[in-house]
Amino acid sequence: MEAFSDGVFAIVITILVLEIKVPEEKGSELWHGLWEQWPHYAAYVVSFLIIGVMWVNHHTIFVHLKKVDRPLMFLNLLVLMVVSVIPWTTSVLAENLTDAESASIAAVLYSAWTVVYALAFLGLWWHVTRVGHLFHERVDKDGARATRLRFGLGAVAYPLTVVLSLFSATLTLAAHFLIALYYAANQIPIPLVVEEERLESASDLRK
Amino acid sequence: MEAFSDGVFAIVITILVLEIKVPEEKGSELWHGLWEQWPHYAAYVVSFLIIGVMWVNHHTIFVHLKKVDRPLMFLNLLVLMVVSVIPWTTSVLAENLTDAESASIAAVLYSAWTVVYALAFLGLWWHVTRVGHLFHERVDKDGARATRLRFGLGAVAYPLTVVLSLFSATLTLAAHFLIALYYAANQIPIPLVVEEERLESASDLRK
Amino acid sequence: MEAFSDGVFAIVITILVLEIKVPEEKGSELWHGLWEQWPHYAAYVVSFLIIGVMWVNHHTIFVHLKKVDRPLMFLNLLVLMVVSVIPWTTSVLAENLTDAESASIAAVLYSAWTVVYALAFLGLWWHVTRVGHLFHERVDKDGARATRLRFGLGAVAYPLTVVLSLFSATLTLAAHFLIALYYAANQIPIPLVVEEERLESASDLRK
Amino acid sequence: MEAFSDGVFAIVITILVLEIKVPEEKGSELWHGLWEQWPHYAAYVVSFLIIGVMWVNHHTIFVHLKKVDRPLMFLNLLVLMVVSVIPWTTSVLAENLTDAESASIAAVLYSAWTVVYALAFLGLWWHVTRVGHLFHERVDKDGARATRLRFGLGAVAYPLTVVLSLFSATLTLAAHFLIALYYAANQIPIPLVVEEERLESASDLRK
Repeated sequence: MEAFSDGVFAIVITILVLEIKVPEEKGSELWHGLWEQWPHYAAYVVSFLIIGVMWVNHHTIFVHLKKVDRPLMFLNLLVLMVVSVIPWTTSVLAENLTDAESASIAAVLYSAWTVVYALAFLGLWWHVTRVGHLFHERVDKDGARATRLRFGLGAVAYPLTVVLSLFSATLTLAAHFLIALYYAANQIPIPLVVEEERLESASDLRK
Repeated sequence: MEAFSDGVFAIVITILVLEIKVPEEKGSELWHGLWEQWPHYAAYVVSFLIIGVMWVNHHTIFVHLKKVDRPLMFLNLLVLMVVSVIPWTTSVLAENLTDAESASIAAVLYSAWTVVYALAFLGLWWHVTRVGHLFHERVDKDGARATRLRFGLGAVAYPLTVVLSLFSATLTLAAHFLIALYYAANQIPIPLVVEEERLESASDLRK
Repeated sequence: MEAFSDGVFAIVITILVLEIKVPEEKGSELWHGLWEQWPHYAAYVVSFLIIGVMWVNHHTIFVHLKKVDRPLMFLNLLVLMVVSVIPWTTSVLAENLTDAESASIAAVLYSAWTVVYALAFLGLWWHVTRVGHLFHERVDKDGARATRLRFGLGAVAYPLTVVLSLFSATLTLAAHFLIALYYAANQIPIPLVVEEERLESASDLRK
Repeated sequence: MEAFSDGVFAIVITILVLEIKVPEEKGSELWHGLWEQWPHYAAYVVSFLIIGVMWVNHHTIFVHLKKVDRPLMFLNLLVLMVVSVIPWTTSVLAENLTDAESASIAAVLYSAWTVVYALAFLGLWWHVTRVGHLFHERVDKDGARATRLRFGLGAVAYPLTVVLSLFSATLTLAAHFLIALYYAANQIPIPLVVEEERLESASDLRK
């Protein structure tokens, strides 16, 4: 399951580049043609970072699991389905970013899709922390459950980008970049049972 | 073999998204353009679910095998070949779903291909259960063989969708969604030798 | 190295399907459009089988190796480079198969490329059998070296398809299908040191 | 992390071939059409070799690491982002290589991108050698640190290709081929603690 998911993330993050086209301008116009594609480069970088951070979070959860149940299998398929669509929302945004009218529509689509992703991911995390028995023994299950509120609050940033999309598509893209950077630097750690406690309980057993 | 197959499934399920195009409409027409592509979104979701369930079934079989023989290797290549074509049948269906005349043709193609897949998969399962010695020791081989009838009966749903395709392409797509959901929730389990029996035979050996 | 190579084979075999386009015909013309694409389906099946057999052979060699040296690393990159081009030679052949004049040109390209692949693969096998020390201990190195002639003779079939290409592109495609089927059924096995010999040499050591 | 990176490298190196198009010429013009695409073949071979060598270097570093910290995770994402763009710079170069005016622009882009890659890779290597504790025990950390200068000096070849790009795009492509060949043959080895030292320190411990 984890190898399959890692494969999907690796493919999605790599085929993102198919969204950047070769400029049709020839001759000295090529510089101009390359320059005019800046929305594609910007959208590529932001989506690459978003998917990369998603993968890191996804990977972090799965290394703390010792088994997978059927609901998790399908919640995970849902997460992968949502991730796989990102190259398309990225293309739509990049194509329309400099169009006065359609830019905000494309930005709403792009931002709304991050909300969908956040919900799918929260659903997966909710299930894992609720059933508990999928975790490795060393995971502090109550602590993991307690992260759900913080996890959920953090996801509020995404609906806000939907609102921002109505005003400026370019600012929205910048906001997604900053949010991804924030999550890159501030992952919610999955709490482990602390060493001392384990030593204590081990010595308790020996008495 | 299993890593290779998982790789193929992961790539097929991910390149499905290349079938959804960026609308050419600009300006305020973008909403309309996005809306008009609903057959692509619907076909994407259904095919993603179908391939995802296929992968889960495929994976379930392979984790119960301890070795691979040459016929299995080529039956497996056949299954992968059939799976790899699904992004194309999906595109053909999505392109034609709202066309009065060609919709049913595209739906017949899409449905017939699921029949081909079911046959290839049944062939693989038939071979594995017939030779028996490819299974891990803990698999109940007679029980596994007994699943073939139920497996085969379940596959009757696919030819029925070919018939349905002649009447309504949209209903056919919905039927495939429901069948995939059904298989997602009701996988035929591969029976294992029960614990008690193993304990008994173990104690028999000790006498 | 092996995981990387398996990944490349899995991707090449999967993106082959991108060569089959969605017919542009709408309405009742769709059947006709689907039918007219038969060269694409035929070329897809043949190339899928060729790459599948290549992968099986490649995999068989690598599971008998215990380490990789630098020349092998680059001979392997060469093999992967040649394999990765097959989706393109497949497309060129499929696009031109029914054109009276260009069919033979495309068939020569397709067939010549299989010669290039056979040479690259022979080079890899030559290197592995010549240096010997990359094999696992249980491989019969002299026996492996002896397969080189048979391996090389088998490769004569490929230059013959180049000649056949000048006469009929369709027959050439059929010939490639048959050759791939032959190799699927008659792989040259990598000889292992037989059990008895190992037991003998082991008892010799004990004296 | 390593499986994910290997997956990205495998996908990037394989989708390079999507950059080679099927010639539109039919009939006896096909030879001409195939011939006219030589810039695409040349660019394909050079980029395949460049990415292949990058992968070998990347792989060599990661097999010498025993763990990954957060900065390394994001430096690695940066390296993968830069690598993933190479199919696009390759396409731009191939499309423009025979255009009198735009060839040098495309060559500057292609060459500048190798500078970006070299910088990203140096950043990763700098971090790994600076913190030290990510290496396996058997790695000679001071020796690894000492390779940084040689590593950095080697990277000077890339800015020189940017200058060469202003004069001849074709020579630039040839230069990249030679540089990649050079790096293929002369990888900077990661020094290991020599056996003798380890034996000595082991015997010291026994006293």
